[in-house]
Amino acid sequence: MKSPSSLEFLAEALRRLPGVGPKSAQRMAYHLMQHDREGAAMLGRALNQAVEKVQHCALCNTFTEHEVCEVCSNPERDKTLLCVVETPADQLMIEQTMTYKGLYFVLMGHLSPLDGIGPKDIHLEKLIQRASDGVVTEVVLATNFTNEGEATAHYISENLKARGLKVSRLARGVPVGGELEYVDAGTIARAMLDRRAT
Amino acid sequence: MKSPSSLEFLAEALRRLPGVGPKSAQRMAYHLMQHDREGAAMLGRALNQAVEKVQHCALCNTFTEHEVCEVCSNPERDKTLLCVVETPADQLMIEQTMTYKGLYFVLMGHLSPLDGIGPKDIHLEKLIQRASDGVVTEVVLATNFTNEGEATAHYISENLKARGLKVSRLARGVPVGGELEYVDAGTIARAMLDRRAT
Repeated sequence: MKSPSSLEFLAEALRRLPGVGPKSAQRMAYHLMQHDREGAAMLGRALNQAVEKVQHCALCNTFTEHEVCEVCSNPERDKTLLCVVETPADQLMIEQTMTYKGLYFVLMGHLSPLDGIGPKDIHLEKLIQRASDGVVTEVVLATNFTNEGEATAHYISENLKARGLKVSRLARGVPVGGELEYVDAGTIARAMLDRRAT
Repeated sequence: MKSPSSLEFLAEALRRLPGVGPKSAQRMAYHLMQHDREGAAMLGRALNQAVEKVQHCALCNTFTEHEVCEVCSNPERDKTLLCVVETPADQLMIEQTMTYKGLYFVLMGHLSPLDGIGPKDIHLEKLIQRASDGVVTEVVLATNFTNEGEATAHYISENLKARGLKVSRLARGVPVGGELEYVDAGTIARAMLDRRAT
């Protein structure tokens, strides 16, 4: 006895989602068929639509449905600042702070030689070309403060500085609301080194 | 700034999957668009196909692409035995043991009054009708040994016995490979009460 082939195919397809194993995929397939066929149909439409419409912005490389994304085509943005982030989610977080009015470049990943992700995969050529447009005066590196993010920032920084561009990095330090007793030593050490005159 | 609307729609649709929250949904959407568009298209097709083709077996209520499922239409099956399970996954597990050659009835859930799941939602009428076909001589209750599964078994048992049907329940006891020192007291108590002459 086997599951009907459409169900099996559905469970197999659900396994393509990150973090979904065989048991979860089967549970999801059963759930959709038993309790949420409308949701299943909606997800099917959403997938088809996204595959068809979503592309990369010609300028900043983020996801968009147009040739150039909303942010890049906004005339009120400061075109002299370029902020480099790993993912569109990171870009959203920075936007939510309302402290940055420049433009972005989205790497869509980070360097990770062990996983075979090299400079080409994070679109370094496109970034260098974008940053060398003569209008950008400062590149703000906002990759994650993980090992991979730091390595990526370092690599990009070296490349851009070699071309005479001004490069900066988000400040490291004690988080807002942080109590020194509970902050890790590495963060405190960094905050001490980067201390500022008040 | 917002995500492009197709991406937002996709993340929203992914949240219909059980166990997927807003952050996971966004990560899944980005992953599919960035690394696995083929997987996204495949999942879209699988969903459409499943919504269109998968229905419930007229006899046992499991998922099938036909009027009557593969097991119910198999002439080699023992038509006098009917095993009641909660889900198609449970049915698959029993099939894998190769110890049961009768037919099935799949409740597609269990009684759970607190969640508003009553006898109607587990297709009790259909089960009673199925079990009273004059051919079935014994109904084996194989719902889970959880509180809900036990309550469901008890409720079905009372209903079927009132109609003069023979009802049995999977044996409870110490699992194969179980060491008494590490088995919970409830299981040992049950195994003691249900002890068998050898």
